[in-house]
Amino acid sequence: MNPPRDDPPVLQVRDIGSFHIGGREAHLSGLPAREVVFSPGNPPVRVDPNGSFEIEQMYVQHVRLAAPRARQPLLLMHGGGLCGVCWETTPDGRPGWQRRFLEAGHDVFVADAVERGRASWARSPEFFAGEPLFRTKAEAWELFRIGPPGSWQGRAGASAACAGQQFPVDAFDAFMKQSVPRWVGNDAATQAAYDALAAAHGPFALIAHSQGCNFAFRMALARPDRVAAIVALEPSGFPDPAAHELARLSGIPHLFVWGDHFEGHAPWARIRQGLAGWRDALRLSGVRVDELELPAQGLGGNSHMLMMDRNSDAVAARVQAWFVQQGLVV
Amino acid sequence: MNPPRDDPPVLQVRDIGSFHIGGREAHLSGLPAREVVFSPGNPPVRVDPNGSFEIEQMYVQHVRLAAPRARQPLLLMHGGGLCGVCWETTPDGRPGWQRRFLEAGHDVFVADAVERGRASWARSPEFFAGEPLFRTKAEAWELFRIGPPGSWQGRAGASAACAGQQFPVDAFDAFMKQSVPRWVGNDAATQAAYDALAAAHGPFALIAHSQGCNFAFRMALARPDRVAAIVALEPSGFPDPAAHELARLSGIPHLFVWGDHFEGHAPWARIRQGLAGWRDALRLSGVRVDELELPAQGLGGNSHMLMMDRNSDAVAARVQAWFVQQGLVV
Repeated sequence: MNPPRDDPPVLQVRDIGSFHIGGREAHLSGLPAREVVFSPGNPPVRVDPNGSFEIEQMYVQHVRLAAPRARQPLLLMHGGGLCGVCWETTPDGRPGWQRRFLEAGHDVFVADAVERGRASWARSPEFFAGEPLFRTKAEAWELFRIGPPGSWQGRAGASAACAGQQFPVDAFDAFMKQSVPRWVGNDAATQAAYDALAAAHGPFALIAHSQGCNFAFRMALARPDRVAAIVALEPSGFPDPAAHELARLSGIPHLFVWGDHFEGHAPWARIRQGLAGWRDALRLSGVRVDELELPAQGLGGNSHMLMMDRNSDAVAARVQAWFVQQGLVV
Repeated sequence: MNPPRDDPPVLQVRDIGSFHIGGREAHLSGLPAREVVFSPGNPPVRVDPNGSFEIEQMYVQHVRLAAPRARQPLLLMHGGGLCGVCWETTPDGRPGWQRRFLEAGHDVFVADAVERGRASWARSPEFFAGEPLFRTKAEAWELFRIGPPGSWQGRAGASAACAGQQFPVDAFDAFMKQSVPRWVGNDAATQAAYDALAAAHGPFALIAHSQGCNFAFRMALARPDRVAAIVALEPSGFPDPAAHELARLSGIPHLFVWGDHFEGHAPWARIRQGLAGWRDALRLSGVRVDELELPAQGLGGNSHMLMMDRNSDAVAARVQAWFVQQGLVV
């Protein structure tokens, strides 16, 4: 029997592997030992928590092709409260951007930032100050513009999505299984790990999402020789333009990508106003910044989670076309 | 220039992807809101921790070949305090068992058990009872039989390894970056997720390590139709033989693999005594159980971390030979 017509192409993979980068050794002392019952019915075991640990490292998984067509490997940088899984199979089971950009000829690196996913996390509050934050379904539903503000009704099935929503709403609970806790004090360690990654394995083309974009902008400022291009998917933050020499970025083309359903979202209005200022500051410093407003380009209905929306292939194709236009794919 | 002779073969990959499986929706209420400063210098934001969450799911990543030679996909089940990363590139940068068993013709599934790595974890103590445990370097050094009992001297470089040690001792700190915290109360949720995985995507051949072996044995008891074989690398636990109908496993060949440096290790003496009883109970019930004592087979010096020791390729080759012997690879 012949395979169905829409079978994805077989990938010629030269290497698949992973590593941790960044981080440091840290020590605990003076904490009391405690009794732990490892298996119900067994006697308790005395556990001394003091000693040495590795903390603040980042995890990176890479898939390299036998014959990549892109000039640099692509690094996918996830957003807040998520890890690299957001680039893999979509919550409703379609190929994600990791797979699509491999098909498009890129070696693909996927990071799990410090404290997220396979990067692991360290004892809190001794090493990670404060408490971890766990995103509720209500917050994700509204902040990610799946439904309008105030639309969450306790469960996804009872909540109204935005009209024409591209997020696969039936897979919202599956998406929430991707959520990982976050602290608010690890940005410096995350940045250090990303910068070390650029130094050791760059130059990269970057696709960053949301919180990840600020790390991408700062990586480029720290190591402009190690960043070939930045695609910023709905960036949520940016460096202080007055504190940096933005002309360092003049050789690095930028593409900002924005979805749909911003109307009535006060937090997003503030974010977009800030990013417009960052965009203008970059342009004034001679940086090429293109903007892809998806609704204006015929792609309506996207949520904040562009890479897993039902039209994720079409959005990826626009990003790939921009890479080709920049001469980054041969 | 010709590539070096030892270049690994190009893999023909039909699919690479991932999903979460298992878990449930859970709810928090009545907790106080708190003020969180997300960026230094910014005003605090009020965060309400109450709401709905997905908890207790497992993460699974799979790589499928265009033309697998194994009759079933292989599922790699990590041990305690670790996640699926232990099967990827070794801490000293060599290809790991994920890669080697792909080369050997298996589709490979790698799980991150509940609470570990990309499976994510839930608020504690509200959802995950008790406190998370963080393994110290001292415990890993001695429990994993890298150095003899009492050999840890505060850092790897100052500590004596066992004579003839196969663990890549210079990469011990890199290995410790793979460590993830653990709780002691999530075994039932982990088992439920593994059993759901077997039901949805099995039958599998299993390679399990340490704590992962007990989940493998129980998966086979729950769904013997979904398990083709079990390779148990230094299993650390087992079900109560009196509580199960072991004849259910009679069609499932088992291979137990043991490394070196057990002398003088009281915890390992207890573990091996227990597992000998489990082995004998299986055999009495008609289950084929082979044992591979690596030192007796000419492979000396292995630590508990067989899959990342310097002779990991040779150990993998013995396991693959056993799969072939069982008729599981065509």
